[in-house]
Amino acid sequence: MAPQQPARQPAPDATRRSERSRRAIYDAALALVAEIGYPRTTIEGIASRAGVGKQTIYRWWPSKADVLLEAFLDLSDQAAQAAQADGTADDAAYALPDTGDLAADLKYVLRATVDELHDPAFEAPSRALAAEGVVNEELGRRFVARLLEPQLQLYVDRLRAAQEAGDVRADIDPRIALELFVSPLAQRWLQYTAPITYEYTDTLVDYALNGLAPR
Amino acid sequence: MAPQQPARQPAPDATRRSERSRRAIYDAALALVAEIGYPRTTIEGIASRAGVGKQTIYRWWPSKADVLLEAFLDLSDQAAQAAQADGTADDAAYALPDTGDLAADLKYVLRATVDELHDPAFEAPSRALAAEGVVNEELGRRFVARLLEPQLQLYVDRLRAAQEAGDVRADIDPRIALELFVSPLAQRWLQYTAPITYEYTDTLVDYALNGLAPR
Repeated sequence: MAPQQPARQPAPDATRRSERSRRAIYDAALALVAEIGYPRTTIEGIASRAGVGKQTIYRWWPSKADVLLEAFLDLSDQAAQAAQADGTADDAAYALPDTGDLAADLKYVLRATVDELHDPAFEAPSRALAAEGVVNEELGRRFVARLLEPQLQLYVDRLRAAQEAGDVRADIDPRIALELFVSPLAQRWLQYTAPITYEYTDTLVDYALNGLAPR
Repeated sequence: MAPQQPARQPAPDATRRSERSRRAIYDAALALVAEIGYPRTTIEGIASRAGVGKQTIYRWWPSKADVLLEAFLDLSDQAAQAAQADGTADDAAYALPDTGDLAADLKYVLRATVDELHDPAFEAPSRALAAEGVVNEELGRRFVARLLEPQLQLYVDRLRAAQEAGDVRADIDPRIALELFVSPLAQRWLQYTAPITYEYTDTLVDYALNGLAPR
């Protein structure tokens, strides 16, 4: 994280130029997919908008799916870094908080997700990509594996810790359990079935942990 | 339901012709949207494939969204009628079963939904429509209101009955509660996050009713 690392010294101008190009390509790819959708987004269109030659893109990425995948991973990283820098967030990209209060920790992370889903920089390109994933199984599976599943695994880790602490039953499969509060939020976002609020995600956590049946 | 009703007598040939055209238009609309997606599906394309004039379509429906909406409602009705006729299903289109065993009833209906999600006649057009709804808020909201929400309300009714029977806590909001088992299945289908099986939906029902925390 130091501003000048030895490995970057050999060709500082070239490195800076590459970084500028890479950033312009990511921005162009995200903007284009948001505006015209995945099927009509092309490497040529991204290159033109980014002000680079299309060979520059082909040198770094084999396909538009690869460019977009990295652009989204970069967008997530930026969001995580910004949240850490301004002190409003956690290490949500790397581990969920564990204060010992499972309900509070889950509510905290889901509220942050509500904010992210309402962020315009995130929403339009994410919707375009999610829509394509619904009808394009290969792309859908690839993006889920790289973008969504790593985030879901953070919930698996937190629920495993809760099992060790005795806060979640030992016979529960954490990978399924997390869907009780993550998937409702995802479906409301994907399908506009109902509003997304903090009160809603708090309620999901309470229902999932305590169950619907009387105790 | 009688085969010959007086209201159908005045112009039987015209009625039969209309019914044949309507069926051909629904079939063409569903096939086209599955093959080329919602944006590229046009009234002209539907008319051409159905072998009717496009004025025939415009006389009955103001837009392609309306044609597709009715084609999907018809597809759901047909599936419900077929299931009833062959004795494998319930009145799932109109009410959920209420045997007094909430877990068993929910598992039964979710297993039927798993079958429906795996039915090729349903899958391709449904995916095309769901994908468009992700990026086209007006269409998404309209289709949810006409197609999805009425089905979700059947769960609301069943959960209300369970509250009266003392099987679900009185302070639970049934419209949110149903999402604990419906939305995970929807997200796995929409995003290919993981396989969809009877064992999976049975597990969702058990987790939702009993909760993740020890009892």
